Amino acid sequence: MPKALFDSRDLARYRVEDGRGFRLADHDPGDTHEILTKEDAVDLLQAGIRDLAALQERLAAQDRWSLLVVLQAMDAAGKDGTIEHVMSGVNPAGVHVTSFKAPSQEELDHDWMWRHWKALPERGRIGIFNRSHYEEVLVVRVHQELLAAQKLPAGLAGKQVFQERLRDIAAFEDYLARNGTRTVKFFLNLSRAEQKKRFLARIDEPDKNWKFDCGDVRERRHWDAYHEAYEDAIRRTAAPHAPWYVVPADKKWFTRLVVARALVDALERLDLDLPPLTPERLAELAAARVELESER
Amino acid sequence: MPKALFDSRDLARYRVEDGRGFRLADHDPGDTHEILTKEDAVDLLQAGIRDLAALQERLAAQDRWSLLVVLQAMDAAGKDGTIEHVMSGVNPAGVHVTSFKAPSQEELDHDWMWRHWKALPERGRIGIFNRSHYEEVLVVRVHQELLAAQKLPAGLAGKQVFQERLRDIAAFEDYLARNGTRTVKFFLNLSRAEQKKRFLARIDEPDKNWKFDCGDVRERRHWDAYHEAYEDAIRRTAAPHAPWYVVPADKKWFTRLVVARALVDALERLDLDLPPLTPERLAELAAARVELESER
Repeated sequence: MPKALFDSRDLARYRVEDGRGFRLADHDPGDTHEILTKEDAVDLLQAGIRDLAALQERLAAQDRWSLLVVLQAMDAAGKDGTIEHVMSGVNPAGVHVTSFKAPSQEELDHDWMWRHWKALPERGRIGIFNRSHYEEVLVVRVHQELLAAQKLPAGLAGKQVFQERLRDIAAFEDYLARNGTRTVKFFLNLSRAEQKKRFLARIDEPDKNWKFDCGDVRERRHWDAYHEAYEDAIRRTAAPHAPWYVVPADKKWFTRLVVARALVDALERLDLDLPPLTPERLAELAAARVELESER
Repeated sequence: MPKALFDSRDLARYRVEDGRGFRLADHDPGDTHEILTKEDAVDLLQAGIRDLAALQERLAAQDRWSLLVVLQAMDAAGKDGTIEHVMSGVNPAGVHVTSFKAPSQEELDHDWMWRHWKALPERGRIGIFNRSHYEEVLVVRVHQELLAAQKLPAGLAGKQVFQERLRDIAAFEDYLARNGTRTVKFFLNLSRAEQKKRFLARIDEPDKNWKFDCGDVRERRHWDAYHEAYEDAIRRTAAPHAPWYVVPADKKWFTRLVVARALVDALERLDLDLPPLTPERLAELAAARVELESER
């Protein structure tokens, strides 16, 4: 057993439920929660995954709530690895991962939320968005030529468009909460120096080569613009029913622990008890038993 | 380490690649491969899951092939548990499970393959069909009133319709193979006595209650008709590029081991090597390295 503990109370410093006054600069990408060692974190992650698997089973059995998990980050912050290491161990029948890439022509011919809406998790499931509707106020804001490709009618893509989209997102997540889908959002907070180190490793190590996209270095040039857009997004969309977690991402073992524990926390906040058996259901079960017992 | 081994060669007795003369009666639901104990099987399953996770990573990295896994069985044969126990541990971003239920009105307003086609795995992914297009020659054949609900034009749902559908399925899976999707199909072969035992357990144990559907007892009345339909389906659709496995299902630990090993075998038959780096790609990587190194 790990010597240190890491539980729901320890999550509070990473959770943003009210975005007023939020500043990304107050969050250290290298933070690893002072009392933790890597060895402890690895043990704690395993415990978190076990809790998560058990809660997912109850989520599926009850079949009322669903959980939408949004993962956003700069390149190489560890989104893919976090999904792999946190969610492996959970029943894959209850988890659906959608990785949003550049939109297709069919998707561009619809409103920007359309493709995300289609990918929402069914009741009883966990849906993971690897990148998400937030890209509409991140990459599209940093590269405004992408907005032109969306072919909005004249007058609908004015100066306020990104502020409007943030309001639309907040309204969307509020709507979802009122319909049984809770949203929990993660910004994996990587430092610029650590990103450089990881890019160089991808370039140099043959088995990581395939992961490296040269476009990633070009995006790095826009580091400050992205961070400004993230700060604004977190400020305007953090809510108790749709919190953001700003997760230190310079140490992968710590990132994964925080994400696992935050997912456990999100599921623990739901009432996942099974409804009691009704008299009708009990009678039905008894009748089925009689039929089985009476077989020759 | 387990004392006994269970590898690709041991799979042969469960694999059907040529359906001529296939008889379900030749397959024992209680078979556990003589040399195995449960303890050995559990260790071997863990080894199989590790192999599967590693192969899935190569499948995703190469991004050329995909694998379609079809799970069919009588109720309580262990489809859900097999998915949970075999696929937990594989990166959920690379696996998509689709559980086919009774078709919706929109689905009935299309041809019967439509909803299955839409759910096919993307390149680099494993798609799992928990029930599948085979239900069209199983439940629909046993309950022909379901065919009427499909509203085919007069003359298109004649006596030969299920034989035609089996030919359509074989052609579909052949087409998929020629386009990079290999199909591997499992019939979890449960005995009638073991099904009864499991139903009674579901009725009696409060934490299994929610899984029990009273309709399952009604379906059990059609046991022989279902088995005839399964035998016919396996005879007519087994192929080297789309084999069936008839998996003994009276012992869950053995079912899971066979399925895991068969998935490993299916992926090992694909050429999952990454293409070598081209001179253009090498130059691109070098340029990215220069840009990163030259940052202030």
